[in-house]
Amino acid sequence: MSDSLLPRGFRAAAVQCGIRPKRKRLDLGLVVAERAYPCAAMYTTNLLLGAHVPVCREHLARSNGLVRAILVNSGNANCSTGDEGLEDNRRICRALAELVGCPPEQVLFLSTGVIGARLPVDRVLEALPEIAGQDSQQGLDAFSQAIMTTDLVPKVVSRDCADAKGQRFRVTGVAKGSGMIHPNMATMFGFLFTDAVLPGVSGAAGDDVGAARGVLRRTCDRSFHRLSVDGDTSPNDTVVLWSSQQAPVDPPSVLAGELEDVAQELCRKIAVDGEGATRLVTIEVRGAPSEQQAVHVGRTIATSPLTKTAIHGRDPNWGRILAAAGRSGVQFDPLKARVWIGPADVYSGGRPHPENENAAHLHMLNEKEVQVGIDLAAGLAGASVWTCDFSADYVRINADYRS
Amino acid sequence: MSDSLLPRGFRAAAVQCGIRPKRKRLDLGLVVAERAYPCAAMYTTNLLLGAHVPVCREHLARSNGLVRAILVNSGNANCSTGDEGLEDNRRICRALAELVGCPPEQVLFLSTGVIGARLPVDRVLEALPEIAGQDSQQGLDAFSQAIMTTDLVPKVVSRDCADAKGQRFRVTGVAKGSGMIHPNMATMFGFLFTDAVLPGVSGAAGDDVGAARGVLRRTCDRSFHRLSVDGDTSPNDTVVLWSSQQAPVDPPSVLAGELEDVAQELCRKIAVDGEGATRLVTIEVRGAPSEQQAVHVGRTIATSPLTKTAIHGRDPNWGRILAAAGRSGVQFDPLKARVWIGPADVYSGGRPHPENENAAHLHMLNEKEVQVGIDLAAGLAGASVWTCDFSADYVRINADYRS
Repeated sequence: MSDSLLPRGFRAAAVQCGIRPKRKRLDLGLVVAERAYPCAAMYTTNLLLGAHVPVCREHLARSNGLVRAILVNSGNANCSTGDEGLEDNRRICRALAELVGCPPEQVLFLSTGVIGARLPVDRVLEALPEIAGQDSQQGLDAFSQAIMTTDLVPKVVSRDCADAKGQRFRVTGVAKGSGMIHPNMATMFGFLFTDAVLPGVSGAAGDDVGAARGVLRRTCDRSFHRLSVDGDTSPNDTVVLWSSQQAPVDPPSVLAGELEDVAQELCRKIAVDGEGATRLVTIEVRGAPSEQQAVHVGRTIATSPLTKTAIHGRDPNWGRILAAAGRSGVQFDPLKARVWIGPADVYSGGRPHPENENAAHLHMLNEKEVQVGIDLAAGLAGASVWTCDFSADYVRINADYRS
Repeated sequence: MSDSLLPRGFRAAAVQCGIRPKRKRLDLGLVVAERAYPCAAMYTTNLLLGAHVPVCREHLARSNGLVRAILVNSGNANCSTGDEGLEDNRRICRALAELVGCPPEQVLFLSTGVIGARLPVDRVLEALPEIAGQDSQQGLDAFSQAIMTTDLVPKVVSRDCADAKGQRFRVTGVAKGSGMIHPNMATMFGFLFTDAVLPGVSGAAGDDVGAARGVLRRTCDRSFHRLSVDGDTSPNDTVVLWSSQQAPVDPPSVLAGELEDVAQELCRKIAVDGEGATRLVTIEVRGAPSEQQAVHVGRTIATSPLTKTAIHGRDPNWGRILAAAGRSGVQFDPLKARVWIGPADVYSGGRPHPENENAAHLHMLNEKEVQVGIDLAAGLAGASVWTCDFSADYVRINADYRS
C-alpha cells in the first residue's frame, strides 16, 4: 500500500454511488489537484465515441490544457447515448467544478462500462459532495478499484525516481481494462501522474499544450500502442498524463524513460489480466526496417488467434508465428528469418529445429511470461509488444457475456 | 453424385499413396485435361510460401498458361523445406508429365498439409502410374476427398448453365480448407473448372494469359477474398481457374456471374466447415464509399473475435459490430449508421433498440446462417463477406493441435 502513492499535488478518493445498483462496489473515483495543472489526453481512434471523449477534448481546448479534477465512473460508458449523454457529462462536470472551486472546463469526467444506457445522473450528483470531501494522498488504491469493470485486479504502478543530479520525483500510473476485449465494456483507461516538470511545459501556465501531448504520445507509442488482447479497440479508451510540475528533471529524458517504464508495466498488468488469460506474452521483433514496422509485425503476431491458441496449448508452433509475420505486409525473407521461444531457436535458415521444440515447450509450460521472438533479418530496428494467450474461457466469457 | 461432374475435357482420379502412413485415406488427387488448356492461378500473399507456389508460377510462365494436368497431395505442405522441397516438386511434375505425355511445365503439383517436413517423394512417384491410369469424368468426388486435410466434408459445387442464346456450359468448383485456421496446415485450395470459353482467351492457344488471370482475379475478389475464418492466411493458399474452351458464352458476363456464384458457394461451404463453427455468418455492408471499403469493413467485423464469440453465444451484440466497423479505418458517422441482425434492427439513429433484440436473438438461435448487416450511410457501395462463429472448440482444437 505504501507503494501506491500519488505524486505531490494530487489527492484521490472513491465512493460507491450505485451506478449499477445491484453491484455493491466502488464505482466513482476522483483525483483532485491542489491547483490546475498541465494535462494531456489521448483517445481511442474508434469512430464510435463515448460521450466523454468530445467533452474532454472541448474542456482541454478551453482550459488551455489545465486540469483541476478528474472524475471517473465505472459500470456505464455513457456511449451511444446521443446529445443527452453529452449534456449528462457536462452537467456533472459543472457540479464538481462548483464543489472544488474551478471553471467547469478544468474538470474531466470519464466513463467506462456498458454501452447504450443513460448514466444515472442524479446518483452521481448526490455522491459528489461525499467524494469531494474525502480525497487524500492515500486515496489511490480506492480510486484504482473504483475504475475497474471486468478487471480481476486493480492496476497501479508507482515509482520514486531521481534524475542525474539527485532531484527526486514520482511517476504513478493507474490503469483499467482486461485488454480491449469488451468493446461493449468501453474499456481501457491509463492515468499517468507525476510531480516532474514536463519538458517544454513552463510551470503551471499550461502555455504549451502541444508539448505535454508530445510527451504523452511518445509514451503511448512505446506502451499502450503496443498492447493487444484481441485487436479490438473500444469507443472510450483514454490515456491521461497530468503533472503538478514541482520537480525539474535534468535531463528530461530521465522523465521520458520513467514514464515509459511505468506505462509498459501497466500494459503488462493489463495483458496478464486479459479475460481467460493464463500467460503474459511478450513478442520481441528484431531486424525490422523501422521501429514502426517492428511494432506492426509484433501486433500482427499478437492478434493472430492461431498464435495465441498455440501459446495457450504450450505448443512451440513456429509456423503460426512465421506465417503471421509473413502476412503482416512488412517485407522480409522468411528463409533468412529466425524464430525463438524462450531460450530455444525453433526456426532459422529456412528450416524448423524440432530438436529444440521441447525446450520451447518447457518454457511455455513453466513460465508465467512467455517470450516469443522473431528476427526478420531485414533491418536494424526492433520493438516489443505485449499480449496474452487465448483460452476457451475467453470464448466462454465473451459468448455468454450478455446472456 | 450426378451433380459432381467435371466439365467436358477434364477427367479426375485419386489414390491413397501413404503421405501420412498412419492415416488410411485418399491423399493424392489428379485432374487431367484432354489437351493442354488455358489455366490461371492466384496464390497466397504470405511471404512464407509453400514450394509449389514458385514452381507453379514458373511453369505457367513457361507454358504460356497452358496446363495439361494438376496433381494435389494432402497431408504435407512441402513448405519450409528449402531447395530440396522445390526439387521434390519439380521431380514429381517431370514424372507425371512423362506419364501423360506433355512438357513438365504443363503440370502443376500443389501440396497442402503440415509445414516443415519433406514430401515422401518415392511414395508419390510410385503412385503416379496408378492414378494416371484410372482418371474418369466421375473421379471428381474422389479428388475432392483426396485434397481434404482438417475438413470435415468435401466441398464441390457443380452447375449446368446456359447463356442468353441457350449455349450450355458447366462450371465445377472444388475447394478444401476449414478456413485459414491452420497456417500450419497450409490451407485453402479452390479449383474452378469450366468448358466455357474464357473471355479474351482465344481457344487453346493460351495467348492471353493475362485475360484468364483477369477473369480469375475478378472472381476471387468477389468470393475467396471476402472469406475469413480467423484472419490468418496460409503459405500455400492457391486458387486455380482452368477451361477446356469448348463453349463460347454470350455475353461473357453470364460466365463471370456463374463463376462468381460457384466460388461464393464454395466460400460458404468453407466457412460453415470452419473448425468449431456452429453458424455460417454472412456480413452485409451497405452505404460504403466504395465496394473495396465495404469489403474492408466486412472483413474487420468478420475477424473481430468479439463479434464472433457474441454470435456463438447468440447474443445480438450490436455494440461489438458497430465498434469493429468504427475501428476499420473507413470513414462514416456512427450516429447515422444502422445495424441489423436477421429481421431485426438493433441500432439506428445513434441508439440501440433493446425491444428488437429478442427477434435478433431468435434468428441467431434458429437459423444455421446468421445474417448481420450494417449500413454506414456514407455512400452507395456494398458487399457481403462470409465467416463463421467462434467457439470454445476452436480454441481447444487449435491449442491442442500438435500436442
